[in-house]
Amino acid sequence: MAAAAAAVKKPAAEPEEEVEKMTTRKKKLVIDTDPGIDDAMAIFVALRSPEVELLGLTTIFGNVYTTLATRNALHLLEAVGRTDIPVAEGSHVTIKVSQCHIPCHNRSNLTSGLLFNFTVHASTAQRKPPSYGLQALFMAQMNFPPPTGKPVDQSAAAFLVEQANLYPGQVTVVALGPLTNLALAIELDPSFPKKIGQIVILGGAYSVNGNVNPAAEANIFGDPDAADIVFTSGADILAVGINITHQVVLSDADREKLEQSDSKYARYLSKILGLYYNYHRDAYFIEGVYLHDPATLLAAVDPSLMTYTEGVVRVQTVGITKGLTVFDTTKKRYGEITAWTGKPTVKVAVTVDAPAVVEMIMQRLTTDD
Amino acid sequence: MAAAAAAVKKPAAEPEEEVEKMTTRKKKLVIDTDPGIDDAMAIFVALRSPEVELLGLTTIFGNVYTTLATRNALHLLEAVGRTDIPVAEGSHVTIKVSQCHIPCHNRSNLTSGLLFNFTVHASTAQRKPPSYGLQALFMAQMNFPPPTGKPVDQSAAAFLVEQANLYPGQVTVVALGPLTNLALAIELDPSFPKKIGQIVILGGAYSVNGNVNPAAEANIFGDPDAADIVFTSGADILAVGINITHQVVLSDADREKLEQSDSKYARYLSKILGLYYNYHRDAYFIEGVYLHDPATLLAAVDPSLMTYTEGVVRVQTVGITKGLTVFDTTKKRYGEITAWTGKPTVKVAVTVDAPAVVEMIMQRLTTDD
Repeated sequence: MAAAAAAVKKPAAEPEEEVEKMTTRKKKLVIDTDPGIDDAMAIFVALRSPEVELLGLTTIFGNVYTTLATRNALHLLEAVGRTDIPVAEGSHVTIKVSQCHIPCHNRSNLTSGLLFNFTVHASTAQRKPPSYGLQALFMAQMNFPPPTGKPVDQSAAAFLVEQANLYPGQVTVVALGPLTNLALAIELDPSFPKKIGQIVILGGAYSVNGNVNPAAEANIFGDPDAADIVFTSGADILAVGINITHQVVLSDADREKLEQSDSKYARYLSKILGLYYNYHRDAYFIEGVYLHDPATLLAAVDPSLMTYTEGVVRVQTVGITKGLTVFDTTKKRYGEITAWTGKPTVKVAVTVDAPAVVEMIMQRLTTDD
Repeated sequence: MAAAAAAVKKPAAEPEEEVEKMTTRKKKLVIDTDPGIDDAMAIFVALRSPEVELLGLTTIFGNVYTTLATRNALHLLEAVGRTDIPVAEGSHVTIKVSQCHIPCHNRSNLTSGLLFNFTVHASTAQRKPPSYGLQALFMAQMNFPPPTGKPVDQSAAAFLVEQANLYPGQVTVVALGPLTNLALAIELDPSFPKKIGQIVILGGAYSVNGNVNPAAEANIFGDPDAADIVFTSGADILAVGINITHQVVLSDADREKLEQSDSKYARYLSKILGLYYNYHRDAYFIEGVYLHDPATLLAAVDPSLMTYTEGVVRVQTVGITKGLTVFDTTKKRYGEITAWTGKPTVKVAVTVDAPAVVEMIMQRLTTDD
């Protein structure tokens, strides 16, 4: 990390060669996101990370409906002058809804074999995304202007598959919302798990209670079927659960530092963080906010900020514990074949250097380009 | 504990009064059991515990079919000369099977409104009990004689209800198998949870993987519907999971001590422990055996051997995590009502003084009456 940062600042003796070297060194990232206040922080941290080449944003329901996630993503990039980064709109519905046969859900707005653009106003129970019940319309609340840009003419899943094919083994997807787009990418191209470099997932509650209910974490709860597809796909997966992100807290003192910073990123975030602080005070009785998304983004940038255990993760898709992640870390030889037997393993974060993560987030957000 | 033991040994100045005092002090226990090698140890520890008055054994499927559990229970009591203790035979089927309406499962052997005596040989998939795949027929394997005694002419559930009514608030049930009999007792008498003193459950895997599969512990997996009924019944419940009992290990050295002991309990157990050691070597790669059942028995005798956290436990009854226990310990204020909201709390063991538990088990089993 320090080395990479130094490389960016170092005056280049042979500029072109140096730039070429830097570019090849940079980690190609796609952020799959449902902005979302901490998503905004993660996107800004990515833009401020010299180790990262941000290939694009793909949007998904979660904190907000997909249509609004797309608007928020475009707006965030415009707010910091980075309209060079493409935004691809993702699924409006969970994978199970998208997989049922026409006309089971009256899909008049079907636009491709895989993705469907329902208008945002036509709501049904099935299409209602799970919500933290907090973030909602920060643009509207803050009187931010609607974005002038548009998403690319390609679905999130198609965009993900395209990037994986363009740079085989080199693209890291940082998945900050429900995993529908990634499951659709796997459905679109079964070789996607092998072509993608790594998928870093903010999702799950490992050996701790969930944040939607005692069993489930919000992103996995948002589309448990998609999550189970992705976790068992054989891709190189690194999962960061709320057992980790609940250790990474932006304190009131940090918030003051953000408010005092002249950086455009800090100035923007200062405007929208109040809502998020209020939510944490109300729901968790803490003064501070959990940095779920930026912490996960940094795990993709510098995996050494956390330690990991490897094993199979399966997702419960029905019943009262729908959305629960069960991570098999036993060495026990079970008497019978289980739903975990023979499935590909993933890495799950078990410890985090929380002060280092918070410091890195603060450092990147309080300085300008 | 020490005080109670002293009371037993102390020469009584006024014998009758002293005996009366001792009797009123003793904890009235019913052990609901599926013997089972470690069940045998637990029953013997109970018989050797001066603090305990053992009211009876009720039997349940689990390690073995119910019919065999009953035979084993009778045999164990005969082996140590305690045929004064009644055995009541429990359900042969899970609560859901027992609740469906006639003739949904061709219940020709229906003997009461609640319990059904299928013959043990007529097997169906639904009636096959979950099994550790280990203990099976220790009587047969060891050429032990079949028992000469018979179970009482009362179902386990009826026996449990009767004891709770005889001694309201004073009876502790130590549940060492699936919780079907207890759920049936609640169904038989909805006031049972309030009349029973305490239910000490060996069941669940709290923040650790299960022992049937990565999600589920064997006793809960055996009848998840019954377990959910019992956990949410409002009874005073103390649950001991495998997160606790996997810390309580009988070492090879302990086994040698048992083998060298002249106590009838130790001599009997020495004959059947080999099988259990082999299983642990094969499944867990350890030299030693987990003392699930005797550790739980001792939690009933002396709760101070463990520490507990209080919260709501719900059981997943379907899907790949069927039998999983989810224990809500968060202080989080969830946005919506969850399946845990407003349910009665239970106490779940979170730490154990394992050396003290093993020592107490060894002390009781290596000395005679």
